[in-house]
Amino acid sequence: MTDEVRIYEVGPRDGLQNEARPVATSAKARYVALLAAAGLREIEATSFVSPRAIPQLADADALLPTLLADPAVGGRGVRLPVLVPNLRGLRRAEEAGATALAVFTAATDAFTERNIGLTVAASLDGFRPVLERAGQLGWWRRGYVSTAFGCPYTGLVEPAPVVAVALRLVELGCEEVCFGDTIGVGVPSQVSELAGRAIEAGIPAGRIAFHFHDTRGTALANVVAGLASGIRCFDASTGGTGGCPYAPGAAGNLATEDLVYLLDGLGYRHGVDLGRLLEAARFVAGTLGRPLASKVGLAGGWDPATGRPTGRA
Amino acid sequence: MTDEVRIYEVGPRDGLQNEARPVATSAKARYVALLAAAGLREIEATSFVSPRAIPQLADADALLPTLLADPAVGGRGVRLPVLVPNLRGLRRAEEAGATALAVFTAATDAFTERNIGLTVAASLDGFRPVLERAGQLGWWRRGYVSTAFGCPYTGLVEPAPVVAVALRLVELGCEEVCFGDTIGVGVPSQVSELAGRAIEAGIPAGRIAFHFHDTRGTALANVVAGLASGIRCFDASTGGTGGCPYAPGAAGNLATEDLVYLLDGLGYRHGVDLGRLLEAARFVAGTLGRPLASKVGLAGGWDPATGRPTGRA
Repeated sequence: MTDEVRIYEVGPRDGLQNEARPVATSAKARYVALLAAAGLREIEATSFVSPRAIPQLADADALLPTLLADPAVGGRGVRLPVLVPNLRGLRRAEEAGATALAVFTAATDAFTERNIGLTVAASLDGFRPVLERAGQLGWWRRGYVSTAFGCPYTGLVEPAPVVAVALRLVELGCEEVCFGDTIGVGVPSQVSELAGRAIEAGIPAGRIAFHFHDTRGTALANVVAGLASGIRCFDASTGGTGGCPYAPGAAGNLATEDLVYLLDGLGYRHGVDLGRLLEAARFVAGTLGRPLASKVGLAGGWDPATGRPTGRA
Repeated sequence: MTDEVRIYEVGPRDGLQNEARPVATSAKARYVALLAAAGLREIEATSFVSPRAIPQLADADALLPTLLADPAVGGRGVRLPVLVPNLRGLRRAEEAGATALAVFTAATDAFTERNIGLTVAASLDGFRPVLERAGQLGWWRRGYVSTAFGCPYTGLVEPAPVVAVALRLVELGCEEVCFGDTIGVGVPSQVSELAGRAIEAGIPAGRIAFHFHDTRGTALANVVAGLASGIRCFDASTGGTGGCPYAPGAAGNLATEDLVYLLDGLGYRHGVDLGRLLEAARFVAGTLGRPLASKVGLAGGWDPATGRPTGRA
């Protein structure tokens, strides 16, 4: 089994989308450039949803071309997926130069109905023409299955419906499915079970990603369980941006710097430099005007040769 | 293998020892009573070190008898180990009514020399009469091996010297050895290796505990690795008290409520009620006048039947 892990950075989209404070387009571009400079090669850049629904990402049409034109980002071949909810969003993404997209649904109707105003089945029906058109354009396509372990409205979610939605996304053309622990309730035994069931159902481990939230501190333990199941792609948000909207003050996305520290310690290769990543983390925290929401952001990395912390401000 | 896990609470001693703000004896007694009410059965209560060295715990001679006399603590048979550095401390502990102690050394001379003014070997020599006398008194005895993964002065620590110190502590009479990740740098692969080496060297898994710091977010992942190696005792500090003295603002001890959430999710039995534990966590945070330093303290637990958080203030 390969020791290479893909880190899929979600800070600019999922992180900033959940931050109350708006960020200028130029600051977003700088943030993504710092992420690319740290070695990240997949950065979910923005979302082509309605600007009224998510004003934080209303500058998508301007931001994406800027990133693609940046020699240090688009010029280096960094993959910049964008969230696309429908054909209207796809047309905007296409005009902005996108070559990779993500669609977003969940395992529970209760969640999608409140989140995107559709049942899960209706959301999948809506994705069909989007994913078909994106396939014709040669785009890379990812499908999110949110509430993969628990739903804030219905409670525990069993693996069966999660795998069923993932299979539909694969049938519709997604190169990758990503299981999201939206409210941060999952534990490692659930991760092993879901990964095993998805692989058994015919989705190769190499096409499965996990998106953990550290809301209850289990994100890195869940990553280790995913690795043991053969999963080699994990989402994370530099600086730990994107607090949990269901618990004010609580953590949301796993911080990329915490993930990198773990992977470095376990000897996995991922191409990201922790010191440079911490520069990006400090930049985004400074931009948002708040302390870093990550453990490694506060403590720094660690030099096994000297015992001293590394990369701290 | 048993599904019962012992949670060894270190908040009153290790947590408060590292807090700048002093806590009144009556508040400490209340804190321990709340911990016992939550179901904790082993609570490291205080330390019989020099009051000048650690003024935060200078009230040990008054606190321990209070706890032992409390029907809800001593009266319930809660084990209340106290840290004892030498024979002088042992005499004080004996007078105060102790029946369980812990001695504290490390795997690296650089650490013990700065921390307790002795080499590791000299510290072990000093423990011999302490542990002998405690054995004659019928006390339960634990030995800490600090810097078990990394030392802030010398860097990476290999398992061999850690196991060597642990074996000496067992020879000297310790019923339990506890490996401490003092600066919070360990990752799961190191935990598995150290546990395996210690067991191979002849220390039964049931006599090994781990003390993880969540400084870099790896504590729960490390607990899972320990569980997989057969370890069934983990230290934690309710409310996440005890920041990391080597990285101001960074986390120290794993929070007990985060550990309990994980163990509940994995189906281990431990006897602690998360909701009541969160009351103790809020009490100590309020007493220290600062926000809770734990993920579950901020987010709450979770009810799989409804999807709603539990135990939040």
